[in-house]
Amino acid sequence: MENTTATAPQTTASATVLNQQELLSHWQGHRQLTRRVIEAFPEHDLFHYSIGGMRTFAQLVQEINGMAAPAIRGIVTGKWVTMDEIFGAPAPQTRAEILKQWDETTEELNKLVPLIPEERFYENEKVFGVYEGLVNSSIQYFIDNEIHHRGQGYVYLRSLGITPPPFWER
Amino acid sequence: MENTTATAPQTTASATVLNQQELLSHWQGHRQLTRRVIEAFPEHDLFHYSIGGMRTFAQLVQEINGMAAPAIRGIVTGKWVTMDEIFGAPAPQTRAEILKQWDETTEELNKLVPLIPEERFYENEKVFGVYEGLVNSSIQYFIDNEIHHRGQGYVYLRSLGITPPPFWER
Repeated sequence: MENTTATAPQTTASATVLNQQELLSHWQGHRQLTRRVIEAFPEHDLFHYSIGGMRTFAQLVQEINGMAAPAIRGIVTGKWVTMDEIFGAPAPQTRAEILKQWDETTEELNKLVPLIPEERFYENEKVFGVYEGLVNSSIQYFIDNEIHHRGQGYVYLRSLGITPPPFWER
Repeated sequence: MENTTATAPQTTASATVLNQQELLSHWQGHRQLTRRVIEAFPEHDLFHYSIGGMRTFAQLVQEINGMAAPAIRGIVTGKWVTMDEIFGAPAPQTRAEILKQWDETTEELNKLVPLIPEERFYENEKVFGVYEGLVNSSIQYFIDNEIHHRGQGYVYLRSLGITPPPFWER
């Protein structure tokens, strides 16, 4: 294999590894799992439990869900709301409210992600007027951030003696 | 925007959102961060600390790193080792040994990922003879699994009073 190492990257570097439709399915698969993690928390712990001075899972979910649809809306339209506008709004106070907002975002992403113009993924954009980078990389960041914080929710659940939903079920 | 919702998916569903070169950079960016999380643990806690009956961070890292290179080797060659062969080998007993294996895997991924033939990403494959699915989705799973478990390491660190490296630094 050593002999081909030097030439292979040039021939396949631009090969598609993920397309727009798969991006949406992949994200929604993760979102379904995160929704099940929200449901797995006892309601009081969702809003009050944390470890090591970290945010509660409700607060982590608020970050994940609060930015998702506004980010894709900004990517589609080129018009951005600020983080202050997103997080200045009153946060959900019950699990039912969290899940309602979650499901609204799910619907909105299903509509918006397919509307992102093909060339847009490789354009530079200042997301929320702050985070500069290629659009594909910014969207990936939102998904990664969700996986990261949901993993933390798994530890909260385990330390509460609750078995989290399997990671591989989407 | 409503008017275009119905037609947009057909025109852009196959747009490239991630290519082979970006997949490798993205993965290695995450791996650099995970390496910093390994370094952030006091050595004793790396091997002994856990929350809620979960695995230690050393064990989680062993899962992440143990499968990465063998998986890509299998994808490139079509020949698979078993999970027993991977995890039957003695696990590293010191942080230095973990980091050495980690860096060897980093080098190997840099060589192997560019060797994956373009068409391979959309082929069905039974990874390690067990996990069946499209190759692109299996590789994504390994990266997601790393983000998931690293997020758990962040909670371990926070509960030990240690500030983890920033998530956005890759």
